[in-house]
Amino acid sequence: MTEQTKKYKVVFMPDGIETIVAEGTNLLDAAIAAEVHINAGCGGTGACGTCSVLIKTGLVDSPKTTSISNSDYQNGLRQACKSRVMSDVVVEIPASSRLETAVLKKEIQNSHNDDLLCSGWHFSPPIEKRLLEISPPSLQDNTNDMARLLRHMDDSQTHPEIKADLHFAKKLAATARHDNWRVTATLLKFDEHTRIINIESGDMRTTNYALVFDIGTTAVRGQLLDLSQGQAIAQATEYNKQISFGADVIARITQCGRPGGLEKLQKAVVDTLNTLIEQMLASSKVARSGINHIVVTANTVMVHLLLALDPQFLRTSPYVPTLSSTPLVKAYTLGIEVEEHVRLYCVPSVASYIGGDIVSGIVGSGIHQRQPLTLYIDIGTNGEIVFGNSEWLMTAAASAGPTFEGGGIQCGMLATNGAIEDIHLENDKTEPVLKVIGGDPPLGICGSGIINLAASLLKHGLITQAGRFNMENGHHRLRIGENGAEYVLAFDAQSGNGKDIVFSEIDMLNLIRSKAALYAGYHTLVSSVDKKMTDIEQVVISGTFGNHLNIENAIAIGLLPDLPRHKFSFIGNGALLGARLIAFSNDVRNQSSIVASMMTSLELSENADFMSSYTAAMFLPHTEAALFPSVKIGNLP
Amino acid sequence: MTEQTKKYKVVFMPDGIETIVAEGTNLLDAAIAAEVHINAGCGGTGACGTCSVLIKTGLVDSPKTTSISNSDYQNGLRQACKSRVMSDVVVEIPASSRLETAVLKKEIQNSHNDDLLCSGWHFSPPIEKRLLEISPPSLQDNTNDMARLLRHMDDSQTHPEIKADLHFAKKLAATARHDNWRVTATLLKFDEHTRIINIESGDMRTTNYALVFDIGTTAVRGQLLDLSQGQAIAQATEYNKQISFGADVIARITQCGRPGGLEKLQKAVVDTLNTLIEQMLASSKVARSGINHIVVTANTVMVHLLLALDPQFLRTSPYVPTLSSTPLVKAYTLGIEVEEHVRLYCVPSVASYIGGDIVSGIVGSGIHQRQPLTLYIDIGTNGEIVFGNSEWLMTAAASAGPTFEGGGIQCGMLATNGAIEDIHLENDKTEPVLKVIGGDPPLGICGSGIINLAASLLKHGLITQAGRFNMENGHHRLRIGENGAEYVLAFDAQSGNGKDIVFSEIDMLNLIRSKAALYAGYHTLVSSVDKKMTDIEQVVISGTFGNHLNIENAIAIGLLPDLPRHKFSFIGNGALLGARLIAFSNDVRNQSSIVASMMTSLELSENADFMSSYTAAMFLPHTEAALFPSVKIGNLP
Repeated sequence: MTEQTKKYKVVFMPDGIETIVAEGTNLLDAAIAAEVHINAGCGGTGACGTCSVLIKTGLVDSPKTTSISNSDYQNGLRQACKSRVMSDVVVEIPASSRLETAVLKKEIQNSHNDDLLCSGWHFSPPIEKRLLEISPPSLQDNTNDMARLLRHMDDSQTHPEIKADLHFAKKLAATARHDNWRVTATLLKFDEHTRIINIESGDMRTTNYALVFDIGTTAVRGQLLDLSQGQAIAQATEYNKQISFGADVIARITQCGRPGGLEKLQKAVVDTLNTLIEQMLASSKVARSGINHIVVTANTVMVHLLLALDPQFLRTSPYVPTLSSTPLVKAYTLGIEVEEHVRLYCVPSVASYIGGDIVSGIVGSGIHQRQPLTLYIDIGTNGEIVFGNSEWLMTAAASAGPTFEGGGIQCGMLATNGAIEDIHLENDKTEPVLKVIGGDPPLGICGSGIINLAASLLKHGLITQAGRFNMENGHHRLRIGENGAEYVLAFDAQSGNGKDIVFSEIDMLNLIRSKAALYAGYHTLVSSVDKKMTDIEQVVISGTFGNHLNIENAIAIGLLPDLPRHKFSFIGNGALLGARLIAFSNDVRNQSSIVASMMTSLELSENADFMSSYTAAMFLPHTEAALFPSVKIGNLP
Repeated sequence: MTEQTKKYKVVFMPDGIETIVAEGTNLLDAAIAAEVHINAGCGGTGACGTCSVLIKTGLVDSPKTTSISNSDYQNGLRQACKSRVMSDVVVEIPASSRLETAVLKKEIQNSHNDDLLCSGWHFSPPIEKRLLEISPPSLQDNTNDMARLLRHMDDSQTHPEIKADLHFAKKLAATARHDNWRVTATLLKFDEHTRIINIESGDMRTTNYALVFDIGTTAVRGQLLDLSQGQAIAQATEYNKQISFGADVIARITQCGRPGGLEKLQKAVVDTLNTLIEQMLASSKVARSGINHIVVTANTVMVHLLLALDPQFLRTSPYVPTLSSTPLVKAYTLGIEVEEHVRLYCVPSVASYIGGDIVSGIVGSGIHQRQPLTLYIDIGTNGEIVFGNSEWLMTAAASAGPTFEGGGIQCGMLATNGAIEDIHLENDKTEPVLKVIGGDPPLGICGSGIINLAASLLKHGLITQAGRFNMENGHHRLRIGENGAEYVLAFDAQSGNGKDIVFSEIDMLNLIRSKAALYAGYHTLVSSVDKKMTDIEQVVISGTFGNHLNIENAIAIGLLPDLPRHKFSFIGNGALLGARLIAFSNDVRNQSSIVASMMTSLELSENADFMSSYTAAMFLPHTEAALFPSVKIGNLP
């Protein structure tokens, strides 16, 4: 703080970001303060060597370390965490040391496809932790604590206006004095505003976590992200506890019309989130106090229910949400069990039935950035579909029902441990070979299992194209059960719960309705812009089906269009992918607002083309066989 | 909303404020939207005629009304509330129609002194209510409710960024549809930011109230302000319920060191505020939902306790507050019983013992705007003093104790109904003539009564200059009571509570300590800038003593300096005056920040001059008689 300290300019290349620092400043700290994110895997202790940078011009005081070879050292490579700035310097950050690169690598591993990831962003999470070593007050300088802190921050970096929470102020006096004014401040950076939301004693920079949630009508999926490393470190999935109030959004909205209904539904989803948080904290051994931010991606109805916004006008014409961009909300005010400083951000939505989940799916997969005409299908309860490219994006929702998430199916379940995710039938006489998530005896069947089962039964003639069971086949696994005709996937002795695991004709008809709604949805959407199915250059499929979706089988039952197979990509949970990137980068968050405003929504519920297309698709794969030329149907009776 | 509507420019003189409005817009609405405040006493119904304006150029459609004479009408005078804009117009608002004028008139009545009021501000309350008539959604335009509202507001007036509360969003859908999108929005204007904090159905513009509180260590004083009229419509005073935890701020801070102590003290002051709110709502018949804002002026310790900020570092060297400028706080989060949208603003403080109350006192009385060297004395428990003018302001706090608010005095009480506020003694044998607030039998004695009693007893030789009772006089009202020597102000038969009302020698010694602390305080402060008492050009006294303070008696006991009497002004509760103006005008609020940063604080508790000056002042009026040449002491023994 002495005025005699020399100041030097540090320029970080290739982005040319400049900052002024005091002589002797640690180069990694300088980079963090300038919001240049260097990959410091070990937290700046010098152990890992991933923060190596190239000193282009100028002088740093930096020892040769074992992580750097002699020749690299001679060429100017240094560990940023071990370097002190001793003159004006220009620093080149190699691609290998950029935190973006580390994040990208992991995301590409996750998505199996490096072409399907949003590009053009920097690692810039909305939460930044900054270590401050502040000169303590004296009788000569007894400025109040808040002003002292802001004055210090202004010294190290220029911020036009930093605001502070009252919650922060309450902790300030005691925390600052605990380690003689050596503190870590937690900053929330949102739009142009910076707000100090928390303070901790000592250096707590590496304890910086965020939660992302994909709140679906049927299931809620969460991930715990380490913001200091740019990676997910835990995940969990649970049924949305709102299911007790109805399987689909219409039933939930109706429930809200009853006294106390909205409050009950809000509590149900918050309870679900709290359960997931509990699970992820337990599996990762992260303390609850380390959570600093929450990103939620969800359909419009789920956002309304989470925030306790009256949803009744969403379901009646002219289908108007209360809002599409939500203000940041303090998560604890909703009942979410995190510290008071944690804000919750909802990805913006487009319309009553086009939610933030579809926006984050598009943003995450980068479809809005590329030229090819892409069909994006979210195979979930609400069946959202997007068609378009970097120039325009059309979107619609074709309520598919919960079938693909194992809902409304007698032995259906989420794609979690115990779920049959794949089935192999050699022929119409054979015993099924089951693939169960986790490898234990089966408890039920999930979405991908249902698709594969239906395709196999159809292929081997055990069901008709109308979805009726071919009882004449006499297969010992075909029988009449309590709910009519059914196929036994696993008898009680083989199952994990001592009960037969079956798939009934009623389940099959539910599946046909679900796939017909989705097919009719994208067929109508493509037609609405005067395109044909064959104009589609790329099909991106999002959904949560265990490890993967069998595209061939999905086409065989008419869920996906019969196009050349190389056009298909499955990206797993696209909504959660987008939400994760939004938590890692304010750049991606900004893109999500742009994407939301780019999207034009088509209302299917009053669309005549959709209704006739839906009826025509109530067959396996379709009433019009010419639409599925590659699908061969087995030995039908 | 149709794009064909013609737009016209309206210029309001003398300030030259311009706005663009649609053809046919009501001129009063145009003025409100442009933040030009015209005095519309009747709420824009046309009844009162106070909104008359002069049309300098251009055309308005406006009938002749009975409030406007024929010649005035011919000269271009029109009632703004009855006028519709039909071309570009230039409008002159006469001084008589400016709301500032109305506010100023009332404030001058209150303060008895038009020279002692902050000048150079416009009526611009932080809360603005705006009537919006929005086109309802349709299938062709089913933009979400929030965007629809913001789009409409953007049409009527340019705001760079309006943010909305979640609380507001929760009410939006139902409220907007209640009267087909005719709504009143409540806007909070703070710094450069505008936030929509509430929405009501229909035209609720005239229901706009604010609360101001002066939270003193001993007493809390509140006023309920009508922001649509610029006037206080109710007031109430209560002892600060924190008194149960100690009479002075040191005792209260000590209490906070115990487990749960801070929470108890916070609850105590919030309970006091809630009691006052209850009383003011009852007496004014205003609904609780009409309250939109709260301004608090208080000493630094009281602000810390209200916001539950740990006060322990305020009382130990180097005396550091957590903050001086507090963020806006949602009042209900503190337990204050108002609607969720109401924010609480605390006037900024200067140092640990120089609070927002003294800042608002200076701002309200305008001392920072004028040249004369002024001594400002707040005669309260903490005894804050300011010395300076428009160029510089020195300040100090001389802990006077609660004597002047009736605290620590056997029969002391606040200046409320039943308090003896004045006493007349003809000579040393006579019976006292009492003046009681409210005119009922007395219940106790308040600050002004105590000063007048002491001066009278001194003048007539019933006490010595050391404050000892002259028992040899043999007056039948002088006696030895339970606490030693005492003077009976009222015997049980005459009192309002059936008990003798007495003033004891112990009370007198408390008074001497209190007045000595204040005298020593301002004497030290004046000396610290190398000035003499005779350099003081003006003395402004703030305090709450019923209707007035007897300056002559206050000098007689050495509470005020012996200066020419024309230099003295008593402004009543200066802190509350300033808080009221801050609630009426963002201009005044901005000034309060400037004043807080102008003030230099002198710490008296470790000052040797103060200690010797205090000892010298422990006499009536002073040990050094030459300092009080005009004071004649009576027939002392």
